Amino acid sequence: MTIDGVRERVARGATYEAIATGVLERGQTDAAAAHVFTATYADDALAAARAADAAGRDAGRPLAGLPVTIKDLFDVAGETSLSGTIVRRGLPAAGADAVVVSRLRRAGASIIGRTNMVEYALGGVGINPHYGTPRNPADPEVARVPGGSSSGAAVSVGLGLAVAGVGSDTAGSVRIPAALCGLVGFKPTQWRVPLTGAVELSRSLDSVGPIANSVADCLALDAVLAGVPLPVVSRPLSGLRLAAAQTLVLDDIEPAVAAAYERALRTLADAGASIEEVQLAQFGRIAELNQPAGLSPIECWAAHGDLVRAREADVDHRVAQRMRLGDGVSVADYLAIHDRRARWITETERALEPYDAFLSPTVPIVAPEIARLESSDDAYFAANRLLLRNPFIVNWLDGCAFSLPCHAPGELPVGLMVSGPRGADARIAGVASAAEAALAAR
Amino acid sequence: MTIDGVRERVARGATYEAIATGVLERGQTDAAAAHVFTATYADDALAAARAADAAGRDAGRPLAGLPVTIKDLFDVAGETSLSGTIVRRGLPAAGADAVVVSRLRRAGASIIGRTNMVEYALGGVGINPHYGTPRNPADPEVARVPGGSSSGAAVSVGLGLAVAGVGSDTAGSVRIPAALCGLVGFKPTQWRVPLTGAVELSRSLDSVGPIANSVADCLALDAVLAGVPLPVVSRPLSGLRLAAAQTLVLDDIEPAVAAAYERALRTLADAGASIEEVQLAQFGRIAELNQPAGLSPIECWAAHGDLVRAREADVDHRVAQRMRLGDGVSVADYLAIHDRRARWITETERALEPYDAFLSPTVPIVAPEIARLESSDDAYFAANRLLLRNPFIVNWLDGCAFSLPCHAPGELPVGLMVSGPRGADARIAGVASAAEAALAAR
Repeated sequence: MTIDGVRERVARGATYEAIATGVLERGQTDAAAAHVFTATYADDALAAARAADAAGRDAGRPLAGLPVTIKDLFDVAGETSLSGTIVRRGLPAAGADAVVVSRLRRAGASIIGRTNMVEYALGGVGINPHYGTPRNPADPEVARVPGGSSSGAAVSVGLGLAVAGVGSDTAGSVRIPAALCGLVGFKPTQWRVPLTGAVELSRSLDSVGPIANSVADCLALDAVLAGVPLPVVSRPLSGLRLAAAQTLVLDDIEPAVAAAYERALRTLADAGASIEEVQLAQFGRIAELNQPAGLSPIECWAAHGDLVRAREADVDHRVAQRMRLGDGVSVADYLAIHDRRARWITETERALEPYDAFLSPTVPIVAPEIARLESSDDAYFAANRLLLRNPFIVNWLDGCAFSLPCHAPGELPVGLMVSGPRGADARIAGVASAAEAALAAR
Repeated sequence: MTIDGVRERVARGATYEAIATGVLERGQTDAAAAHVFTATYADDALAAARAADAAGRDAGRPLAGLPVTIKDLFDVAGETSLSGTIVRRGLPAAGADAVVVSRLRRAGASIIGRTNMVEYALGGVGINPHYGTPRNPADPEVARVPGGSSSGAAVSVGLGLAVAGVGSDTAGSVRIPAALCGLVGFKPTQWRVPLTGAVELSRSLDSVGPIANSVADCLALDAVLAGVPLPVVSRPLSGLRLAAAQTLVLDDIEPAVAAAYERALRTLADAGASIEEVQLAQFGRIAELNQPAGLSPIECWAAHGDLVRAREADVDHRVAQRMRLGDGVSVADYLAIHDRRARWITETERALEPYDAFLSPTVPIVAPEIARLESSDDAYFAANRLLLRNPFIVNWLDGCAFSLPCHAPGELPVGLMVSGPRGADARIAGVASAAEAALAAR
């Protein structure tokens, strides 16, 4: 389901109301949609759809009548955002919509429902023991994880229940499920989209971005989420200088991912892009600079530690274990991470300066089987580490990135990540758009 | 010593070199200048002065040949910034000038020397047991404190040894000594002037600003420090709506300060300003929101705690005692202060929205006697609390403010503070400039 596709159906006589009714029903009845939603908004979604039908072509609202979903950490007035945990049940309800939710409403979107996610958004696999694990729609044979933490967001799009799922991305939580499900995910530069009214994971790293079926649809959503459209300039691939990152991002890569990724690089090169293998050795130092505990666990523990400590038996032990790393870290150690990160960003921005974007596989593996990761903590943590590793480089950089599908039909999805530094969103969107077109044309 | 005054002397035949020679000599020999400098830069200062003499009127550098001083926390390549403490002696020397120092050099300033300060900049009184306490030049009879923490910066200007002293202001450290010494001090919005290469007190609150003899001279310095001149628009007082803050800022005010402050308000009103008494009850909640320890002690301890712990006997016990408040604070408590502050800023900005500026006494007391505060911790801490209280409102607001002298000739100095929110620097400078003119004309 794409924005143009929905608009076309409406131009041919369908109504937004009928489309919303259809996805609401499929969301309830389709077995593939199990565990995708933690709540649906039939009344509001249909009201928005009817308003779009009534307004017709002149509505002037950029998302009028379009089905979208929101991750279960964005506040809706009168409800408690659960953020994938059961221990937040009973907390005071939000007094107001999150800023991005109110922007979606003002843009006319038909908000179908809240989507399932990894507990506290702390993980890249997409397994949730409390609300169930939505199954990856890309493999009808084997039950595979959807990726996380915005698991339900991706699956809602993958199943055609929404033109876009709005997620959050702290260490890849938009791009990982986009890559594993064969969709496009966009993590904008953090400051561009307000976090007000989103349950915090890591205030330094959290970013709000869409998962959709195309770069164009991601940009349509981003314009609403950010409040202003990116000034994207289309540029031919032949004018672009792209860095193919070497350090870290290719380690432990699965053969299927390596094959799809290399094919994608060849496609871009054949279309005229200048692709240079660049070490970017800085990527290898992130883990060490982010010690003793990592910004995410520290800030997550600061925000939620009291509740998790009091209710630890009710929290996924894998999530609690990672969050606990942030317990007892001193302000000095915390601020020292910020200082090291700031210097690293300056240095890395300088290294990236000659390039229009840098490229990597979004993640080095295809979607693992749910059963294998559910049954083994070791397998879960190993997969989680591999899934978060490449996307996190961009969060640590305070940068922006698209994940684009680059696998062949019939293969399990593989993501090509197109990344750039802080504030380079318009340029990276232009590169991603050109890359998407080249990949589609092959 | 003002910028126009120096330029005029040069136009009449003096040389910048002779002027620099004169102030360097007075800095060494004048008893009143004792404890003002922790280092002087005769060679570099004279070289800059000679360069200005050689270039003549066409130098094109905004501060060419003008004597300025820098607080002893701004890095100079090859030296260790001491920040008023002896425990930093022997630390590695700075590899580069602080950004503001290199901007001063590029602007042609003749940097006379580094000025004494409160240890670690943590205090408003201006007493330093290691490097001595510069005496307030405004009272030839009684040895009074100069105010701090930029004590030497103010006294260097008060004695005519510089057109401006560049200081830092975390809770009033520019404005307090300006007020107590009868000078103009400007605390800009924090983000406008880079902190790179300045020894940290509180990364959230530290701001770099000048002390000088006029608003115009402060703005000339600020243009260099910020890298870009403020677009100040002159406005008549008759068009201005000014809030005279009531909450907190008038508590425990000394009669001499109250009299001078009320006279100043009348002068502004007589000149046509609309002055409204406004409660601004938010000001009364700051201390509580800043618990459990205050951002300054927490961030200062994070930056310097290891060294101070190891050398506590070598640190002013009054400074160490305040810094220790930051020991052991959790990241959760620390980030909670930031959250409360952010909400307070939003709320207070809204309350200030109708006004061109808000007014208060800079500090509620005149400069106390050095001997009385040296001999009593209680008297020291009581004075320190009163001195920091009003200026800190503006740091907590992330705002900007000028302190203007408003006492009559022959009285001890009293400061009128003209303040506004984040980024309102150009508007506040316009108001301060108009107020300065009205006070001068009476």
